Amino acid sequence: MATQVTTSQGSSLSQGSSLRDRFEAVRALSRGIAAPLSDADATLQPCPDASPAKWHLAHTTWFFETFVLRDHVEGYRRQDERWAYLFNSYYDGEGARHPRAKRGMLSRPSLAEILDYRERIEEAVLGAFTLLPAPALHLLELGLHHEQQHQELMLTDLLATFSENPLGIALWPREEERPDAAEAMGGARFGGGTAEIGNGGDGFAFDCETPRHPVLLRPFELADRAVTSGEWIRFIEAGGYETPGHWTADGWDWVKRNAIRAPLYWDAGADGYFRYGLDGLHPVDPAEPVAHVSWYEADAFARWAGARLPTEAEWEAAATGCDPLAGNQLDRPGAVRPRPAHGETRLKQMFGDVWEWTASPFTPYPGFRAAEGTVGEYNGKFMVNQFVLRGGSCATPRGHVRASYRNFFYPHQRWQFCGLRLARDIR
Amino acid sequence: MATQVTTSQGSSLSQGSSLRDRFEAVRALSRGIAAPLSDADATLQPCPDASPAKWHLAHTTWFFETFVLRDHVEGYRRQDERWAYLFNSYYDGEGARHPRAKRGMLSRPSLAEILDYRERIEEAVLGAFTLLPAPALHLLELGLHHEQQHQELMLTDLLATFSENPLGIALWPREEERPDAAEAMGGARFGGGTAEIGNGGDGFAFDCETPRHPVLLRPFELADRAVTSGEWIRFIEAGGYETPGHWTADGWDWVKRNAIRAPLYWDAGADGYFRYGLDGLHPVDPAEPVAHVSWYEADAFARWAGARLPTEAEWEAAATGCDPLAGNQLDRPGAVRPRPAHGETRLKQMFGDVWEWTASPFTPYPGFRAAEGTVGEYNGKFMVNQFVLRGGSCATPRGHVRASYRNFFYPHQRWQFCGLRLARDIR
Amino acid sequence: MATQVTTSQGSSLSQGSSLRDRFEAVRALSRGIAAPLSDADATLQPCPDASPAKWHLAHTTWFFETFVLRDHVEGYRRQDERWAYLFNSYYDGEGARHPRAKRGMLSRPSLAEILDYRERIEEAVLGAFTLLPAPALHLLELGLHHEQQHQELMLTDLLATFSENPLGIALWPREEERPDAAEAMGGARFGGGTAEIGNGGDGFAFDCETPRHPVLLRPFELADRAVTSGEWIRFIEAGGYETPGHWTADGWDWVKRNAIRAPLYWDAGADGYFRYGLDGLHPVDPAEPVAHVSWYEADAFARWAGARLPTEAEWEAAATGCDPLAGNQLDRPGAVRPRPAHGETRLKQMFGDVWEWTASPFTPYPGFRAAEGTVGEYNGKFMVNQFVLRGGSCATPRGHVRASYRNFFYPHQRWQFCGLRLARDIR
Amino acid sequence: MATQVTTSQGSSLSQGSSLRDRFEAVRALSRGIAAPLSDADATLQPCPDASPAKWHLAHTTWFFETFVLRDHVEGYRRQDERWAYLFNSYYDGEGARHPRAKRGMLSRPSLAEILDYRERIEEAVLGAFTLLPAPALHLLELGLHHEQQHQELMLTDLLATFSENPLGIALWPREEERPDAAEAMGGARFGGGTAEIGNGGDGFAFDCETPRHPVLLRPFELADRAVTSGEWIRFIEAGGYETPGHWTADGWDWVKRNAIRAPLYWDAGADGYFRYGLDGLHPVDPAEPVAHVSWYEADAFARWAGARLPTEAEWEAAATGCDPLAGNQLDRPGAVRPRPAHGETRLKQMFGDVWEWTASPFTPYPGFRAAEGTVGEYNGKFMVNQFVLRGGSCATPRGHVRASYRNFFYPHQRWQFCGLRLARDIR
Repeated sequence: MATQVTTSQGSSLSQGSSLRDRFEAVRALSRGIAAPLSDADATLQPCPDASPAKWHLAHTTWFFETFVLRDHVEGYRRQDERWAYLFNSYYDGEGARHPRAKRGMLSRPSLAEILDYRERIEEAVLGAFTLLPAPALHLLELGLHHEQQHQELMLTDLLATFSENPLGIALWPREEERPDAAEAMGGARFGGGTAEIGNGGDGFAFDCETPRHPVLLRPFELADRAVTSGEWIRFIEAGGYETPGHWTADGWDWVKRNAIRAPLYWDAGADGYFRYGLDGLHPVDPAEPVAHVSWYEADAFARWAGARLPTEAEWEAAATGCDPLAGNQLDRPGAVRPRPAHGETRLKQMFGDVWEWTASPFTPYPGFRAAEGTVGEYNGKFMVNQFVLRGGSCATPRGHVRASYRNFFYPHQRWQFCGLRLARDIR
Repeated sequence: MATQVTTSQGSSLSQGSSLRDRFEAVRALSRGIAAPLSDADATLQPCPDASPAKWHLAHTTWFFETFVLRDHVEGYRRQDERWAYLFNSYYDGEGARHPRAKRGMLSRPSLAEILDYRERIEEAVLGAFTLLPAPALHLLELGLHHEQQHQELMLTDLLATFSENPLGIALWPREEERPDAAEAMGGARFGGGTAEIGNGGDGFAFDCETPRHPVLLRPFELADRAVTSGEWIRFIEAGGYETPGHWTADGWDWVKRNAIRAPLYWDAGADGYFRYGLDGLHPVDPAEPVAHVSWYEADAFARWAGARLPTEAEWEAAATGCDPLAGNQLDRPGAVRPRPAHGETRLKQMFGDVWEWTASPFTPYPGFRAAEGTVGEYNGKFMVNQFVLRGGSCATPRGHVRASYRNFFYPHQRWQFCGLRLARDIR
Repeated sequence: MATQVTTSQGSSLSQGSSLRDRFEAVRALSRGIAAPLSDADATLQPCPDASPAKWHLAHTTWFFETFVLRDHVEGYRRQDERWAYLFNSYYDGEGARHPRAKRGMLSRPSLAEILDYRERIEEAVLGAFTLLPAPALHLLELGLHHEQQHQELMLTDLLATFSENPLGIALWPREEERPDAAEAMGGARFGGGTAEIGNGGDGFAFDCETPRHPVLLRPFELADRAVTSGEWIRFIEAGGYETPGHWTADGWDWVKRNAIRAPLYWDAGADGYFRYGLDGLHPVDPAEPVAHVSWYEADAFARWAGARLPTEAEWEAAATGCDPLAGNQLDRPGAVRPRPAHGETRLKQMFGDVWEWTASPFTPYPGFRAAEGTVGEYNGKFMVNQFVLRGGSCATPRGHVRASYRNFFYPHQRWQFCGLRLARDIR
Repeated sequence: MATQVTTSQGSSLSQGSSLRDRFEAVRALSRGIAAPLSDADATLQPCPDASPAKWHLAHTTWFFETFVLRDHVEGYRRQDERWAYLFNSYYDGEGARHPRAKRGMLSRPSLAEILDYRERIEEAVLGAFTLLPAPALHLLELGLHHEQQHQELMLTDLLATFSENPLGIALWPREEERPDAAEAMGGARFGGGTAEIGNGGDGFAFDCETPRHPVLLRPFELADRAVTSGEWIRFIEAGGYETPGHWTADGWDWVKRNAIRAPLYWDAGADGYFRYGLDGLHPVDPAEPVAHVSWYEADAFARWAGARLPTEAEWEAAATGCDPLAGNQLDRPGAVRPRPAHGETRLKQMFGDVWEWTASPFTPYPGFRAAEGTVGEYNGKFMVNQFVLRGGSCATPRGHVRASYRNFFYPHQRWQFCGLRLARDIR
């Protein structure tokens, strides 16, 4: 019989085969994502926001080595002390580290050496598995969710990297399919009152999703699908990027300073709009949810459309009852494109396809406490200047996201698969 | 008998002597602030955040000329068409404008010409006063509150300007007084539940203060006075600026990038800490509320102190019943220093002395609608990336601030008289 | 009978009425230039390359106070010790100084205070005049030439300042005149061989003009007048600014980075080209020598024209026998415009109108030794990255320039009255 | 019998086995340098000044493909049209090109693909060799010298790349040897008079080395060896980097802005000075010529030492009779370290070890004409803002350099093996 352990969030997980299986499955997916990469592909860093694939592969492994093996397995000795300096991300509690903006200057260790490092750590973890104390298992589970986050980043960072290459590299073949037309946008109405949001369940959740707490909502309407690329083209062609009245002051400043005219990775030519993806350069599919827009753009689009972005509380309240596993998320390497909405009931595309910008800055929930120890740096110290996104994208590993999940980025960032869903007050 | 008119916020004001008197009084205060300035003093711009005194004097006048005279007085012709280009601030609806960062390049028009312009506009407004329609009176009232905001900015911008001059200019003589010791910090406890915040009253309010709406609060404790400079020295000497664990990630980055070690205008020497103010360079008074700290610093201080910043809802709920006129605010030119707390009941220094940073990003209240027309750009377009401050400072004109008042600045800004008050959850 | 003294350059000057008279005349010209300025006009700094008029007025006075009065008049005490910090320019030997880029932040001391300072120093110098030892007289003479250089800078810096003001200020009235057509460009031919350049005469010269030394020249042709604005318009209209082949690599990079399309202060509109000057905004006069072009532009123009810039040795050899006093230089406040060439013999416009960029980097002459003491920093430390200009401009005080005179600026700078004259090899 | 062809410089070369042999030898050396590199090593670009090794390998090949095969072999078709965009360096005449600062973003094509491209071009050149017309052979010869220049850059750029890696990679093993002490610095004296400089001989020379022309020299003394690292340590310890009087104004500004305290790649610790090289991190050898100093540093050192840098004319006149092949230059992959001077006659280390900064800005020789066609962009457009270096370094391929050879870099650059030799006037 499996022993039950309690995480700091009060959830329980089964200490035994299932966590072990998930460990193996998550680690295998990372290897799969890396499979088509050359040593050089895995080494490049396109900008300070993004990291090399090799770095993601090593950093997620360093996380297990540090917080599980070093801290909880007696006599464990690091594979290479110097790698801790290279592969710590932002944990001040773990000491000095290689500057983030210089991660792309490391041709050594090679991809092969890092894959070998992964293997050795996996062996060490699996070898020690049955002896790991409960806190180590909690950290192991945290490490899995952490690695899933980096799987998504690996994909978006590779996209940023290859988008710099004028040869138009297709890392994966394009899946051919009949393009669907977009369904007309409908809306679901929600009454006001008190709702509970935040994670209070048994499963894993990050500290920033807690504590579960009541919020007051006013009656609102939420669109039943994400805004599409076709709708975005209408915004462009209506002068959306040239009309200051649609924009916040900072957004307008950002548009002018960076000469923004379309979503990231879009290219406008005489033949229409094209979008670069990891499957190459292709015409924009007007039915797919628009991706790679910043908060500034999402907010301006909503204002142009006579709507607004939902708050994260509205989004989460509306998502109750939606199935996180029903969406278009990553379940194997390569499948990273938002897809036209298909006919679900009430609300479509709540999970998967694109992260949906909300109107809510990322702030602590009332009564929030960061996790103990160095992993307390995981979320809390980022609770300023960023906005919450909800729902996961086509690059989010299946099973990773949930209704209470809070992703966060700066309002100018758009290298993630970020899109939006419209909301309106009901008066 | 004075006719009653209704502002867009539903308040009423007396159309007649009192508004006219306030017009004259507010305009006179601006002149008073400018009295000790030379033409050159009034021309300089120390940084893009700040503006020349001359510019403030002209811009506030342009506001009346544009939104009251041009829009509501038949046959009115602008004094000088070219000045509209120079003295529009950020109203995209009013067309092209002189770049903000170049405001300090205008030696002409001179201070004397601008004071003369002020006089002519005042005469035109007063001459037309009895004929102004209600909407014009609303805009006139808005213009008065607008001018009061610029009176505070004029003072903080002059401080920024003179702080660049190594001669240690004292614009006003220092008022000598016996320094009080700081009272021990106490706290007031508030139960949780539903509270109402936002402006719903009869008086003037900015659009961003509305609509009044319910919020849910959890039990909390609020310090009965602001954090003092003496307490801030303890933070410095405890290594507050060298310990990343106290800081958000962005805050820590800001500290390192800018080599921040103390509040703005402080100077540490062998003889202790000095602070430059408009009355010259003097030793820091440990009993006075600390001013000129950024949100990053306020947030880090609170974490170091085992506390947190209050939300704006907590602050406003707690301020109910406090008298906005009781504080240390500007009632004549020159009186711009935070003062040691004196014995009020329950909560001291809620109004005046220093603007208090809150934990709340500046976002629209549920159901917010920007004012109609160009003045709708007043607040709404700034609702991103900034934090709310409450309570007013020693540089805020007396009578300007109220419990529902929402000031806002970026988290790195600290040239205003910004300080903080601690809060804590009650568990 | 006047005693003869010898300067470090071996020249002699008459210790008595003439130096004294020149002191009074030079000082008076500075006052004259400042006459139409308001306190604010005199305070602004448009960019780090330029300085406020007030600063020039004070710095030139500080020079006399420091190197003549402080160093050579027993018992002299500085008027204000703190001003030495403010008004030292770049003499590391004179200790710490106010950062150059912050000179525009000094509204105090006022223009009136600085004019008063000037008067007091003049009185002190004149009072001590007959007792000054020879080295002090040399420094006094150096100070006069120094002040003349700053008179030119005062004018060009005021032009830069007022050019930022959209009101199109005319500091001086425009002198109306019948525009001459440009004479056709002719050329004078010079045989090759050994020539002597550098100052070896009795009069004053800066250290960088020495020692006089032989140079080898090849046969060359020099244009008999400067390139005109009309010729420059042809360059623009022939695509000069869009053709990389005309440019050095650094020049082309500078053009693209700064979107350069015309000389500084030019404005192209539907009505043709306009140029802003201290007499306001007026149509470009096609007959006047082009001014306000960088070395990059001058070099590109010459290549486009199938010519090259002359070396400084060629220029100086050709200038032998030309009269430096014959040109269009400043002899009273206000007269600062290049003029169409008039009929001299052989070479026109060699002195006055525009500084002529040469092909020669500013390097030490063979055997160069910097002057002793702090004034040795005057020229020597700038002998890198700059190009030599010859001949003086319409803003150079009459009597200041001579055939051996070497002015120098960075190749991108163009706020001076810089133009060019073409040269060609004779094969 | 080999046909004789004449290059544009009037030299003759043997059209047949020797040029073909040199082609094969030069191409083989590039392959040898690349041998220890992984795909990732060859892909990284450490800064815009440097390029990836892969890029050098492809660009030098593109040069032959473009100027020899495309232009002179009928029916030749490019291997891949898109690569011309990627691997053009700075030839505006060859059309648009990938931005220099983005060369490090190209993980594809891979190192293997580029080595394969090299092989195919080599086969095409060798296959067409006997049919190449004389102009093609001149361009082929130019291409070989061009590739040798890039061999040196490949080494210095790899050094810059690996210096960013905290693991202290040694690309090649260190050759162990007994460190020699430095010989005392002596000097050779040269009388003044007319000398001839510039290339006038039969062999290959770049256009910038011509025409040969007379120069006037004054008597001077030239040190008989380069300045050593041990002497540089004395400069550091005498406060050389803290004393503005040793520096030009721009040099001092550069020192302060970049916090320069030692040559590039030096690290000062409790155990003394260390230097990173392609053979790893080792203690500084005090006897070796100092390398990786900027012109600013070289100039300041010379001034501190009571000397100056030689002009390029002095250097070239002195080098007459020295054997360019006698120095410590690259003759096989890996040998890239300056070496202590050994006993030659008169002047040691004139060729090889370190490029020697001269006092001469890089300007055209009198009568200079750039080569015809696109290759005319080779040198001429860089004749501004750079200084001439002479003599070659340990990373310069043996046989590449000669007495008339003019290398050039900006005065702040120091990632090349740049050092200096002292000179003095004889009075």
